[in-house]
Amino acid sequence: MTQPTDPSRCDADVRMRGFSRRSTVEAASAWLDAQLQPLAAAEVPLADAAGRVLAEGITSGMDVPGFDRAMMDGFAVQAASIAGAAPYNRMPLAIVGQALPGRPFVGTLASDQAVRIMTGAPLPAGADAVLPAEVADVEGQRVFAQGEVPPGKNVGRRAEDVAAGAVLFSPGRRLRPQDLGVLSSIGMSTVRVVRRPLVNIVLTGNELLPAGTPPHGHQIADANGPMLSALTARDGGIVNHCAIVADQREQLLTALARECDVLLVSGGSSVGIEDHVPVLLSEQGELAIHGIAMRPSSPTGMGRIENRLVFLLPGNPVSCLCAYDFFAGRAIRALGGRSKDWPYRRITAPLARKLNSTIGRVDYARAKLVDGRIEPLSIGGASILSSTTRRRRFFDCAGRQ
Amino acid sequence: MTQPTDPSRCDADVRMRGFSRRSTVEAASAWLDAQLQPLAAAEVPLADAAGRVLAEGITSGMDVPGFDRAMMDGFAVQAASIAGAAPYNRMPLAIVGQALPGRPFVGTLASDQAVRIMTGAPLPAGADAVLPAEVADVEGQRVFAQGEVPPGKNVGRRAEDVAAGAVLFSPGRRLRPQDLGVLSSIGMSTVRVVRRPLVNIVLTGNELLPAGTPPHGHQIADANGPMLSALTARDGGIVNHCAIVADQREQLLTALARECDVLLVSGGSSVGIEDHVPVLLSEQGELAIHGIAMRPSSPTGMGRIENRLVFLLPGNPVSCLCAYDFFAGRAIRALGGRSKDWPYRRITAPLARKLNSTIGRVDYARAKLVDGRIEPLSIGGASILSSTTRRRRFFDCAGRQ
Repeated sequence: MTQPTDPSRCDADVRMRGFSRRSTVEAASAWLDAQLQPLAAAEVPLADAAGRVLAEGITSGMDVPGFDRAMMDGFAVQAASIAGAAPYNRMPLAIVGQALPGRPFVGTLASDQAVRIMTGAPLPAGADAVLPAEVADVEGQRVFAQGEVPPGKNVGRRAEDVAAGAVLFSPGRRLRPQDLGVLSSIGMSTVRVVRRPLVNIVLTGNELLPAGTPPHGHQIADANGPMLSALTARDGGIVNHCAIVADQREQLLTALARECDVLLVSGGSSVGIEDHVPVLLSEQGELAIHGIAMRPSSPTGMGRIENRLVFLLPGNPVSCLCAYDFFAGRAIRALGGRSKDWPYRRITAPLARKLNSTIGRVDYARAKLVDGRIEPLSIGGASILSSTTRRRRFFDCAGRQ
Repeated sequence: MTQPTDPSRCDADVRMRGFSRRSTVEAASAWLDAQLQPLAAAEVPLADAAGRVLAEGITSGMDVPGFDRAMMDGFAVQAASIAGAAPYNRMPLAIVGQALPGRPFVGTLASDQAVRIMTGAPLPAGADAVLPAEVADVEGQRVFAQGEVPPGKNVGRRAEDVAAGAVLFSPGRRLRPQDLGVLSSIGMSTVRVVRRPLVNIVLTGNELLPAGTPPHGHQIADANGPMLSALTARDGGIVNHCAIVADQREQLLTALARECDVLLVSGGSSVGIEDHVPVLLSEQGELAIHGIAMRPSSPTGMGRIENRLVFLLPGNPVSCLCAYDFFAGRAIRALGGRSKDWPYRRITAPLARKLNSTIGRVDYARAKLVDGRIEPLSIGGASILSSTTRRRRFFDCAGRQ
């Protein structure tokens, strides 16, 4: 047995006993990625589709707009009929009607005629251009063109926005607000998207009081439940069930058996005498990964029970957050059809000072950006959740091979 | 009257008639910003607080943890009692009990004693360090230390995460998942956040069919309702009411009078014969801004009716999106306590080709990033909503003075 070179720099997760062999982050990620296929499609109303991921590509069945229309207020004309018009050569046309959006002019325009038209109104039959209102003088039932317009001028052509048969979106597209506008414009009232993963959260630890309970005596208030719930929602999952479960076999078994796509278990993930969950997962399904060469979060485990992906997250809140971000969040995002990548902004910058790390281990340091350099925060504790709230995000700082 | 130098390059929003004077984007933004104070506070359950904005700063009323605790599995000891211990100089201690998380050892440790302790368990009275399990050989009721530990080693001190009186968050903080964890750990079950703005959306235009209706004849399906609803939600607003309203005085008056914090009116915002809304806004309240020197979206208007901020957005969907992003979104974000800035990633890169713009006008071009250069998309139409879905976002390209 060897003593860690500096045990105070290892957080509580780094236990020398028990994890005879740790997986690398790469190997653990590779196992995980092999489990991740987007879930089946579900049909949702367009109004609920923002942020959802398309299960199928979308091809337009129609032209948008379905007709030629005016792009300015003015007069629909035959361009040839006012060729040569100018302020000193005003050319008259008879106003024979008007076209408003949704209320077209009925009839066909002759060469000496004009139809008063509003932006968005269908171009009357016979017309091929719109003379802008500001170059048209109206006198009674006649309009005098003060300028000429070429054919097609100020006309929005049928299908200029979307043509029938056009591929609008590919599968996997995460729908943005303007996408909903486009889908609505082709008459879609529902859309087939990837189902959101159902996530159960099990919080273990006899020292835990329910979230929001003032801590007292030797108990602490659960921090991981609210955090994991919010992370799950951020990543597109639906929290189906979230509860503190006693560290007892029967209660844990019930929790492991509850239907979901992803099960997050916080606490009891290591190899201590009260760490029951890894054993139960082995019995009930598969404990594929247990112990990962990373800091914090080394006592992280992953496996399956039937169709449920199970993540054993350390109870220490910083470790829990880190293991979530690396593995569980990746799974929730991918099952819901989103990118596996972190939903954080990524920057590359020099370190303000050296960070020590062991070869083969990935260290995740909390850091802040100071004058374009990355300043590691000095607090190393896996239990210091407040250290993750001082600056905006984690940075992957050192130790990748 | 002057003819535009090239009317085809102006989109439908640029009408020479009527807007005798346009506000600059800067002046319009300045008027708007003077209206924007975060709304009053509301108390919400912690579980619903992710993404919300704190109305008040938060100072911890307690230490977290509230007691010293073990940071490793091992044995609680008096450090001095095993000074000099080494693999070749094992030093025995009597095991007098155990300490588990939430189940402390009752009693006080003497110098020749040890208490088996698990990570997270309270440190027993009398102990000042934790001997890691991997340097401790257990033989019956005794443990032999194979190494020494300095006082305080592997002990998480009371208040190491959060000290009573510490300022955890300032007002205006947008709560992230780990923030909820920290708030939960100090026993907070509710939190006071800025109220989300209530937003009504009025869609005008006799050519409009309800969103999701297949367009037919000379009618088009409403695209702006779904888009504005999703944008509102993205920016933290709550869509209170969203409906197509006929371009008729009585119906518009009813819509203008409906209670909300922000009213978005799409369509009928210009100075045409059927643009009723600017007139009604002037009558019922204040039309402070009408016509803005920008492209698209020049026929944008802003004003107030009592406590309601009113935005007159052009009906053309690209103009509507642009005017939303510039003005209405800014207001919704700010009223809800968020940053006024665009929620888009901002990049600076050279243009791949020249963009023409008029001095004094702000142009918003759709663009794509190609090999590190910004390639303007060639489609200029304010009605081509699909052009906003080809690449991720708008870029402010040209024309700022």
